[in-house]
Amino acid sequence: MSLKIIILGSSSATPTSNLFPTAQWLEIGNKRFLIDCGEGTQMQIRKNKLSFARLDAIFISHAHGDHCFGLLGLLSSLDLMKRQKELFLFAPPQIVELVDFFFYRHSEQPFSYLLHRIPVKMGEKYLLHSTAFANVYTFPLKHTIDCQGFVFEEVFPLKNVNPIKIKEYRIPACDIPNIKKGFDWSSDEGHTIPNEELTLPLPRALRYAYCTDTIYLENLSELAGSADILYHEATYSSSESAIAPLTGHSTAVEAAKAALQIGAKYLLIGHLSVRYKDSSQLVNEARQIFPNTYFARQNSRFILDRKLMNLLIEDPKETVHAQS
Amino acid sequence: MSLKIIILGSSSATPTSNLFPTAQWLEIGNKRFLIDCGEGTQMQIRKNKLSFARLDAIFISHAHGDHCFGLLGLLSSLDLMKRQKELFLFAPPQIVELVDFFFYRHSEQPFSYLLHRIPVKMGEKYLLHSTAFANVYTFPLKHTIDCQGFVFEEVFPLKNVNPIKIKEYRIPACDIPNIKKGFDWSSDEGHTIPNEELTLPLPRALRYAYCTDTIYLENLSELAGSADILYHEATYSSSESAIAPLTGHSTAVEAAKAALQIGAKYLLIGHLSVRYKDSSQLVNEARQIFPNTYFARQNSRFILDRKLMNLLIEDPKETVHAQS
Repeated sequence: MSLKIIILGSSSATPTSNLFPTAQWLEIGNKRFLIDCGEGTQMQIRKNKLSFARLDAIFISHAHGDHCFGLLGLLSSLDLMKRQKELFLFAPPQIVELVDFFFYRHSEQPFSYLLHRIPVKMGEKYLLHSTAFANVYTFPLKHTIDCQGFVFEEVFPLKNVNPIKIKEYRIPACDIPNIKKGFDWSSDEGHTIPNEELTLPLPRALRYAYCTDTIYLENLSELAGSADILYHEATYSSSESAIAPLTGHSTAVEAAKAALQIGAKYLLIGHLSVRYKDSSQLVNEARQIFPNTYFARQNSRFILDRKLMNLLIEDPKETVHAQS
Repeated sequence: MSLKIIILGSSSATPTSNLFPTAQWLEIGNKRFLIDCGEGTQMQIRKNKLSFARLDAIFISHAHGDHCFGLLGLLSSLDLMKRQKELFLFAPPQIVELVDFFFYRHSEQPFSYLLHRIPVKMGEKYLLHSTAFANVYTFPLKHTIDCQGFVFEEVFPLKNVNPIKIKEYRIPACDIPNIKKGFDWSSDEGHTIPNEELTLPLPRALRYAYCTDTIYLENLSELAGSADILYHEATYSSSESAIAPLTGHSTAVEAAKAALQIGAKYLLIGHLSVRYKDSSQLVNEARQIFPNTYFARQNSRFILDRKLMNLLIEDPKETVHAQS
C-alpha cells in the first residue's frame, strides 16, 4: 500500500485540443478512486494504462461540466466491458439524478455491474465512504455552485503484534486476532497486559486532500484537517487576485497558503486558466510561499513514500525526487 | 459553396486512448453541420481548427453513447464562449430529454444562445430541416435501438438569369427577382416567355448520405434516394458477416453494396470494430465491389468538386485526388 496520484486531466473550464479537463486517479489503501471525471476521462484512463476493472469508486466534486461530463461515457463503457464488480458513485444530487434519468429511467439494472449511486450532502462535512483500508471524508468548498472537497485517508484495521512480547507472555495463537484488533490480553492467572505493550505502533496513515473548485478558505484546516499532499486549484496568478474570488477560484499564492494552513508536505496545483501558456509562472508564485509546489501536469504521477515521506514525480517532461 | 466532410471521430463503441468516437463536421450549402457528437468532439473541433461560432445545427443519429456523449460538454462550452447565434439540435427524443433535464429543468434560458431542441421522429422518413441553401432529410436505419440516417442536400433557391435572353426581350431590372424565383415573364404586349428560356439550368445539387449504425438495408435507395457521397458504417469484415446483423451492424462489403444501390460516386467507411488494427483490410474488401471506397480516418477531410465531381482527400497520412 502506498499513495499514488495520476493526473488524467487538469485544465480548466473548456477542454483544449490536447488538454483534458479535471480528473485524477488515486491509489490509496489498496483502493482505486477516480476523483472528478471531465469529458475524455475514459480515454485518459486507457492512455495511462490504468485498470478500469480495478476502479472502486468515483467522487465528483461539483456539477460543472469540466468535472463530470465524462461520467456517462465511463459508466457506459464499463458496461460494454462487461464489468462485474460493484462500483460506488459519490456525486452532487443533480449528477446522480442525471445518471438516474439517462440510465435508470427504463431499467432498474441497466449495467452489467451494480452501481451504488450516492448523492453527496452538499455543504456538509462528514465521513462519506468507509472501507477496510481507506476512509473518504468530504467537506464544503466555496465556489459559484455547491462544491465539495475530499480527504482520502489510509486506515489500518489491524495492528501488528510484537513477536517478542507474544513469546514472553506465552500468548496462545487463538488470542492473536483479538490483540490485532486492539484488545488487551488477560492471562489464565488474571493478569491483564495492555494492548499497547503487545502490539507495534500503527504506521502513519497517509492523507490526501483534494480542493477544486474554490476560493481560498481561511478555515480549511478545520474542514479538511491535515494532509500529506494537497491538490488545490490555482486558476489565477496574483495579478488576477481581484478576479479570483468573483469567479469562485483561487490564485496560486492562495493555494500555497492553503498548503501551509493544513500542514501539507507537498502541494499540487492545477485548473490553471487557459490564459497561462505555461505553468511555471503560477508554480513559481506558489513556491515563494510553499517551496514544495508542483504542477499537476496531465499524465504525471505522484508517488509518496510512507517511510521517508519523499515524493517521486513522474512527469511526462522529467522525473523528480522531492523531499519534504 | 461546396461539399466538405471533416472526420472528427470514427471509432466504434468505446473510445480508445487516441481514437475518438463518431462525429463529423459537414459543410454544405453555406451551412456548418455536426453529425453525431461522441465524447471528446469539442476537443476534435478545436484540433481541426473549425469555428464553433459558425456551427448551425447538430444531428444525432441515435442514443448510444459513442454518438452523443460529447453533446452536453459541447453545448456547455458554447455557452462559456458566449455564443450568440441560435443553434439547432435534432436528436432522438431521449437525448433531447437529457438536455432538457440537465440544462432546462431549473432555467428556461440556461445558455447565452437560443438552442432549438427538436426531437427526431424515430422510424419516420421526412424532411427534417430546411434552410435557404441546404435541406436535411432523415430516414430510419435498423440497429439495436431506434436509429436514423440523414441525407444532406444543397438547395438553390434562386436561378441565374441568362443575360443574353434578358437583353433580347428587353426585360426591365425590376422583373429580374421574380424570374430568379422561377416565374415566367409576360411583356406589356401580353407575350409570355417561359422561365426555362430566361434562366440558366440550376447547378447540380450535391447530396451526402450518412448511415450509421445499421445493418445492411435492401431498401436504402427508397429511404435515402441517391447521393454523391455515402458514409456507411463498416463495423465488420466479411468473415464476421454472421455476427454483423446480430449486433445491428454491417460489413465492409455491405457498405459497398449500399453505395452501389444508391448510385454513390464515393463511399466513406468508418465505425470499424477495434479488433481491426488497420483499416486496409476492410477498405480492400469494400473496394472489390465499390472501388471508390475510402476510410473515414479521424482528422481527414473530403472535399467534393462540383464540376468535375473529383474528391480531394486530405488524410493525415497522405493527400489523394480521387475521380468518380
